[in-house]
Amino acid sequence: MTNFEDAIRNVPDFPIKGIQFKDITTLIGNPEKFANAVDYLYGPFREMEIDKIAGIESRGFIFGAALAYKLNVGFVPIRKPGKLPAKTYSAEYQLEYGSDSLEIHTDAVAEGEKVLLIDDLLATGGTAAAACELVERCGGEVIGLAFLIELDFLQGRQKLKGYRIESLVHYSGE
Amino acid sequence: MTNFEDAIRNVPDFPIKGIQFKDITTLIGNPEKFANAVDYLYGPFREMEIDKIAGIESRGFIFGAALAYKLNVGFVPIRKPGKLPAKTYSAEYQLEYGSDSLEIHTDAVAEGEKVLLIDDLLATGGTAAAACELVERCGGEVIGLAFLIELDFLQGRQKLKGYRIESLVHYSGE
Repeated sequence: MTNFEDAIRNVPDFPIKGIQFKDITTLIGNPEKFANAVDYLYGPFREMEIDKIAGIESRGFIFGAALAYKLNVGFVPIRKPGKLPAKTYSAEYQLEYGSDSLEIHTDAVAEGEKVLLIDDLLATGGTAAAACELVERCGGEVIGLAFLIELDFLQGRQKLKGYRIESLVHYSGE
Repeated sequence: MTNFEDAIRNVPDFPIKGIQFKDITTLIGNPEKFANAVDYLYGPFREMEIDKIAGIESRGFIFGAALAYKLNVGFVPIRKPGKLPAKTYSAEYQLEYGSDSLEIHTDAVAEGEKVLLIDDLLATGGTAAAACELVERCGGEVIGLAFLIELDFLQGRQKLKGYRIESLVHYSGE
């Protein structure tokens, strides 16, 4: 399997002191790594029926849209509040201090459609859980979640019980 | 040619009263329209050498990343301030009231690399001109700009003289 870890740049103290930020721009700038990442994100789900790919703003758009193109399915953007112009559902999630929310167009996913959710990073799982909730409020079925990176030590899977989760790169500690 | 206009939803008075917002989520949610849009964005440039696709945050990521995947080239995200973690160049552009800026990683494009710039919308041309400036500060060459939508009445091309510009859908009036 392609080594993705080597293509991810560690940026210390971003966005705040003490955080080791995993910079994926070095990976997506590399043609082979980017194409392989998209292909491998799909790999575990290739036997499944997929009607739509949903991506979480905004790095999730990069991998999600490429995968939607590859599979010839529609792409659904899940966005920060106030960005989607038509009627939306909104789901809140907790941050360390305070909360934030995500939105989806109410007509972005039709009743019964099978949706694969894509993001670059699984951290605490808050945004991913909100995204699942949004797809389901539209009537869609989340058939799984695929992440480029999973920060295992933040235990995001705890917030996503019952969902199939696949990540290409795991970090076990900060 | 595919009719893209029919797949774009007009949302009146978004984000403010008087604006007819062109909602492309309906287009990208449609498998054939999305795939065709990516293919047609590339069409006019298919005889040219392309080393990288650059996309402007965040709807430009959707079309740009899919095209980078299709062409098996790297993708370069051009982002709002403070989002890119490593060393960046920054370029300002004017808004109706005030200004905003975009950033690129200084190592996102190498000297001499040929870059096709992608965004969903050409309006006044401010963000596109800033994006061209950023690619060039890295040492790259902008071989062209491709947009899904061009609002002809805002005359964005005036800010982009000397660049090859291709847009799939033109709106001649508000």
